[in-house]
Amino acid sequence: MDSIMSMFHDICMNVRSRVNTMSRKEAGISLARGAGGDITKKIDKVGEDAALEVVRRYGIDCTVVSEEAGVVYSNSYKKVGEDYASNVKDSKCFIALDAIDGTTNAVRGIPFYSCSVAYAVSDRLSSVTHAAVMDITSGDIYYAVKGYGAYMNGSRIKTVDVSSEKDGYIIGINLSGISMDRLRRMGKILAMVNHIRQFGSNALEMCLLARGLLDAYIDVRGKIRVIDIAAAYLIVSEAGGIVVDEHCKALDAPLNLDARLSFIASANEYMLNYIFSSIASE
Amino acid sequence: MDSIMSMFHDICMNVRSRVNTMSRKEAGISLARGAGGDITKKIDKVGEDAALEVVRRYGIDCTVVSEEAGVVYSNSYKKVGEDYASNVKDSKCFIALDAIDGTTNAVRGIPFYSCSVAYAVSDRLSSVTHAAVMDITSGDIYYAVKGYGAYMNGSRIKTVDVSSEKDGYIIGINLSGISMDRLRRMGKILAMVNHIRQFGSNALEMCLLARGLLDAYIDVRGKIRVIDIAAAYLIVSEAGGIVVDEHCKALDAPLNLDARLSFIASANEYMLNYIFSSIASE
Repeated sequence: MDSIMSMFHDICMNVRSRVNTMSRKEAGISLARGAGGDITKKIDKVGEDAALEVVRRYGIDCTVVSEEAGVVYSNSYKKVGEDYASNVKDSKCFIALDAIDGTTNAVRGIPFYSCSVAYAVSDRLSSVTHAAVMDITSGDIYYAVKGYGAYMNGSRIKTVDVSSEKDGYIIGINLSGISMDRLRRMGKILAMVNHIRQFGSNALEMCLLARGLLDAYIDVRGKIRVIDIAAAYLIVSEAGGIVVDEHCKALDAPLNLDARLSFIASANEYMLNYIFSSIASE
Repeated sequence: MDSIMSMFHDICMNVRSRVNTMSRKEAGISLARGAGGDITKKIDKVGEDAALEVVRRYGIDCTVVSEEAGVVYSNSYKKVGEDYASNVKDSKCFIALDAIDGTTNAVRGIPFYSCSVAYAVSDRLSSVTHAAVMDITSGDIYYAVKGYGAYMNGSRIKTVDVSSEKDGYIIGINLSGISMDRLRRMGKILAMVNHIRQFGSNALEMCLLARGLLDAYIDVRGKIRVIDIAAAYLIVSEAGGIVVDEHCKALDAPLNLDARLSFIASANEYMLNYIFSSIASE
């Protein structure tokens, strides 16, 4: 295991161990609004602190992009602030962190939430080279290194080779807070697909796709942040899946907290064609 | 524990033990079309056989309504057939069985499916007096006896006392294969609710509501069978929740395989009002 993957493993383990000692009541305490604009829950802060502690211990000098802390240098933890654009030019590496993806589930006691962390060599999603997502409940860890495939607990994982519709598809679709216009675009696919799923952690749902448990995962709300899916994006890609934007172009975005994405992740080309033939154009 | 609950416990345990020895490949073998009209998977048949075996062992003389077998007398397992209407008049009790609720999840390896069984003193949903739902993965069992509350593994469970929207609601909505018209009715609530969930087993999702993990569960597709929700209907009601039809009237239906329902299950009155104010009328 290279040092990045070793650090990611330690990050996930440390986050899991810290948040697993919290009661649901403590986990759900509302703190201030995070750098990403959402209300931070205590579990988010405890998780992020646990992750940043490991980054610092490894002494890696990079720019960290994270929901609560914002954009910070890993050594100083100083905010990058308004001079972000000029400063990040000098950064040799980037870490996109979502310490708790699926906070609502965690706080309510639904056992489906994860820790997601990705490493990139420039400030773009497409430059992510290392990724890890841990299912915090089970401790299962999904990970990938660009060009070397995707794994779950040491075993290679692959997306399903979808080639016919005989048993009906099983597709994850994020519909939470979707606008009426975008919902209308999804009408045909919702009517056609007999098995829609929505578990409440984008990162972990994409790992189910990478493992072959879902045939696709769709989020066209235009609401998801890059840090939420940076790790899962690589895991799905390395498992043989395809991740595109709503216009069917290769997904890419700057690694910051401002960008909001729509994306479609599919097990293979066949499935992708099926989806695009079923989504109404704008 | 009375003898019905004792039998239900044994049914769930027997179903779980039989299906847990099956590989996913074996579980997914397609058999003929069941009495309910859907293609029976081998896991459905193995589960149902395991359940009926226990009913027979208890020697209870009643009418069993089940997806694969159809409507049968528990002692002879003869089909009730076309003379159903006249014959059931003589039946003193009814068992509504869905041995595997969430077959698709079970076959794909998604750990969210259940065994659901209800006992009624006449052939109506409203006359269900005993209910059990087992999470087959974890072995957690949810149960209720009319007038005596709802329980999970021996502990009393209650729905959430929803009274404000401060953290956003978390609502299960079944959208699989929903028609465009019905989807339109749901547009406003999908846009308003930040946390939509769909796990893939109606019975088990309603138990999450009974436990306080969801605020409501909505299925207005007009597709669900009475046997799928007969047990969960009583568990939610006994946990303090409210289950109504799409016109906000107390849910009721004959215990057969023909009826197809729409329903809204809510943690309390406040939540129910919120939902009906957010669903467009037809």
